[in-house]
Amino acid sequence: MIATARCDATAAWQALREHHTNAGRAFDLRTAFASDAGRFEAFALEAPEVFADLSKNLWDSRTRELLLELAHQCGVARRRDAMLAGDPINATEGRAVLHTALRAPRGAGPHSQEVHEILDRMLAFADQVRDTATSGITDVVNIGIGGSDLGPQMAVAALQAHVHAGLHMHFVSNVDGHDIAPVLARLQARHTLFIIASKTFTTQETMANAVVARQWFLDQGMTAQDVARHFVGVTTNLQAAAQLGVHTTFGFWDWVGGRYSMWSAIGLPIAIAVGSTGFRAMLDGAHAMDRHFADAPAERNLPLQLGLLDVWYRNFVGCSSRSVAPYHQGLRRLPAYLQQLEMESNGKCVDHDGRPLTYGTSPVVWGEPGTNGQHAYFQMLHQGTDVIPVEFIAVRRPSHGYADLHAKALANCLAQSQALMLGKTTEQALGERAPTAAPTLDPLTVARHRSFPGNRPSTTFVLQELTPRALGALVALYEHRVFTSGAVWGINSFDQWGVELGKALCGDLLPRWDSGDTAGLDGSTAGLLARLR
Amino acid sequence: MIATARCDATAAWQALREHHTNAGRAFDLRTAFASDAGRFEAFALEAPEVFADLSKNLWDSRTRELLLELAHQCGVARRRDAMLAGDPINATEGRAVLHTALRAPRGAGPHSQEVHEILDRMLAFADQVRDTATSGITDVVNIGIGGSDLGPQMAVAALQAHVHAGLHMHFVSNVDGHDIAPVLARLQARHTLFIIASKTFTTQETMANAVVARQWFLDQGMTAQDVARHFVGVTTNLQAAAQLGVHTTFGFWDWVGGRYSMWSAIGLPIAIAVGSTGFRAMLDGAHAMDRHFADAPAERNLPLQLGLLDVWYRNFVGCSSRSVAPYHQGLRRLPAYLQQLEMESNGKCVDHDGRPLTYGTSPVVWGEPGTNGQHAYFQMLHQGTDVIPVEFIAVRRPSHGYADLHAKALANCLAQSQALMLGKTTEQALGERAPTAAPTLDPLTVARHRSFPGNRPSTTFVLQELTPRALGALVALYEHRVFTSGAVWGINSFDQWGVELGKALCGDLLPRWDSGDTAGLDGSTAGLLARLR
Repeated sequence: MIATARCDATAAWQALREHHTNAGRAFDLRTAFASDAGRFEAFALEAPEVFADLSKNLWDSRTRELLLELAHQCGVARRRDAMLAGDPINATEGRAVLHTALRAPRGAGPHSQEVHEILDRMLAFADQVRDTATSGITDVVNIGIGGSDLGPQMAVAALQAHVHAGLHMHFVSNVDGHDIAPVLARLQARHTLFIIASKTFTTQETMANAVVARQWFLDQGMTAQDVARHFVGVTTNLQAAAQLGVHTTFGFWDWVGGRYSMWSAIGLPIAIAVGSTGFRAMLDGAHAMDRHFADAPAERNLPLQLGLLDVWYRNFVGCSSRSVAPYHQGLRRLPAYLQQLEMESNGKCVDHDGRPLTYGTSPVVWGEPGTNGQHAYFQMLHQGTDVIPVEFIAVRRPSHGYADLHAKALANCLAQSQALMLGKTTEQALGERAPTAAPTLDPLTVARHRSFPGNRPSTTFVLQELTPRALGALVALYEHRVFTSGAVWGINSFDQWGVELGKALCGDLLPRWDSGDTAGLDGSTAGLLARLR
Repeated sequence: MIATARCDATAAWQALREHHTNAGRAFDLRTAFASDAGRFEAFALEAPEVFADLSKNLWDSRTRELLLELAHQCGVARRRDAMLAGDPINATEGRAVLHTALRAPRGAGPHSQEVHEILDRMLAFADQVRDTATSGITDVVNIGIGGSDLGPQMAVAALQAHVHAGLHMHFVSNVDGHDIAPVLARLQARHTLFIIASKTFTTQETMANAVVARQWFLDQGMTAQDVARHFVGVTTNLQAAAQLGVHTTFGFWDWVGGRYSMWSAIGLPIAIAVGSTGFRAMLDGAHAMDRHFADAPAERNLPLQLGLLDVWYRNFVGCSSRSVAPYHQGLRRLPAYLQQLEMESNGKCVDHDGRPLTYGTSPVVWGEPGTNGQHAYFQMLHQGTDVIPVEFIAVRRPSHGYADLHAKALANCLAQSQALMLGKTTEQALGERAPTAAPTLDPLTVARHRSFPGNRPSTTFVLQELTPRALGALVALYEHRVFTSGAVWGINSFDQWGVELGKALCGDLLPRWDSGDTAGLDGSTAGLLARLR
């Protein structure tokens, strides 16, 4: 571990506190744009495949300087270099954190030989499945949960335009049988490939669903030999896989965290969907972002600045959530993916040494695709009592031919960030007609309801096109941003001890489902158990 | 409007403040259960189709008394009665709020005759479509957004087990063409019914998608006569519908808000999916909850107490979001539905008179189905720095036959609320083996990482089965809960002025997509426009 001061004990933190008190609270985006014609350019950043407009955030150049100084005083760059070098920065588990090695070119980076050996084999298998005329496969079912589900599911939806037309991809994750039941009902066993994705092959949900899938498969008149051809495992536990009759397996390593694993064999569904060329392009995009994060100076480093903005909003402005609004329907599962990436990584309340923190860490990340969100919760973003930073993602070129729809989607995207910033004064509202307002209401009251505080922050990302390469870069951007805020906060972003207790208690409760025994349970759990059995 | 004191000016609010300072901050769920064997029963509430365990919330009987007193002093019951009677409680738009009338039995409640006339006609049409052998329809596409999308989409997913096996339901909402394009690619025109759902038939997104769908339909060799048979409108604008060639229409009324409209003709996709019997059962369930809300004494009134708990967490405990965790995959779209219902209703910062509020209103509502959430963001719920109340929804009887999966899903549900409450002390963690912890780390540090603060609140709902009746009751429960907190906060939960500004700015930006004109725009919007064109 690298010894550094706790972020809130640094001089930069103190300076940021003072800056927020003196200038931050009074900062107004409208004034900032009016007084500085160069503001857009000053806060525009170019990273591989992603352009970012940071100018509609509640900061000025002094804020940025102080945040960069904070990163410096917290040793973010040293920590980043330690990660990239393969140091065991996941100290509580004694592991390196090397998802960046999964996308490094052949011969570059740590573990290159083993990474590319499995990658080559996995991609050859994927292309073989994609040759549907020969493989006979029309449906692929990925059974996995958390990191073994959200990445592949998000990426396959995002890259729909690149998916082989004859292939249907399905994702089963929830142990609730209402997840797998309707999927199985749509399948023909002899045309289906099941991927069982669990590093240890002990994940409760995944193994339970795998057993159900295997039994269903056999019930369709298929044999154990067929199981060996129609079930593959993404796992390092070859023995457990073999016990289920699964002999084709693809492994990965303990330096690949679940929420950072879509670049490994966990990405097999993506590889089948978009092919080896597409998958390699996705890795290339992520690698380009890795190089940017490693090499770009702090003043032009996008993931670094995004992570610092997250710290600014969380610990100084006082925001507890961030809304993500992708203006591309293909990115509809990105918010769910980011919930795991960000909240599982940085939802921690102790530092590296286990000392309790006295400042907030991960915000809640949430959202639905725009324009849908506009017709749901954007009311609150515009006129609610809390300031919630919004992240817009716009894609310049669509993969469909509906130019009218595309222009409308993008115009809506820009209009929302504009509206959040500009707002509308009561005076402005008074000067307008309000045909749908109750005619009996006095005009001033109507105008007050129709006014908007404005000065609400947002970031806009622009991608040229939602290609595999762009998606890879975008996801890597989020990874490094989460790394940055976690490094400032001085927490281990790569463990997840908080999932242990619920697992253990579930292990205790499950036998009680049969026995009905409520001994030792609290009154609520006992009462609910009695009602639910 | 009913004159009442602002909530923060009531004696009850002041008493709650003091109670929170004196007792609330020190309140501990573990102690509360240990010292009161009757706590579960004391905080258990039965409402139609929904049992609720409120005992794992951060309150005691004194808190509840004070909250009920707050409701009294804020005139919640009078306001509720005014809503049910059809008074124009949506004062800014001069409208009544009568979604409850949509589910009242024939002859009961306001507007009964017109409600049941359209309901009968709509359900007859739905059953006709469901007779797929005669109708020839295999695919139904609902084109609508916001309230014309989220309710039907959520309900059809929830009631999947009741959907006619030969029918495929599709939902297109986003103006982004990546939404409609893959749907159209899967359809055969002569077997498809399009529902165009927009009260005014002017909703930008819906009309743009309707035009695309109609053109696609004609491009498949269908005629204008076919359009009249394969497109229906849910709208009151018959003229605009006719201009699109749509002559079969089902209307509703200005006293039905978009986010409260799934009970009206907007529910047509639900009616087609589950049939008239199912739809009427859903209305019955909602009506039963309406009666409960209207008649049950405050001490046993579930929506009332839930709304008051929301106020407690938001304004006294200081929570800014609530996580919804349905342990039923069919409820996967419930959080998105609730985002609109709650955040669009109560995401307001002025009171009825337009005076700015000095207290928080709607929290952020978010979540994914359990057990998926456990493998994503539950880390943060257990070990993050913020307290986030969680709402578990458990369903006793599944609609599938996988008993093992079902027991596991429910055991996980109970284990999570138990874990949130119990937590784990560092001393407890020290006494346990931690096989996956780094062996070089000192045991105390490991134990600190593996400890949980606990005392984190949750509510658990239990449904016997996810039937149409139960779903109706559950959704009505949420509606009245949102009503309650909105009534306490003194805001209009039934308007949505906050969506206006973005729409207006989009209207200004759209022509600039062709012209490239950036005159009058702020630097950021101008810069982004140039990049995106």
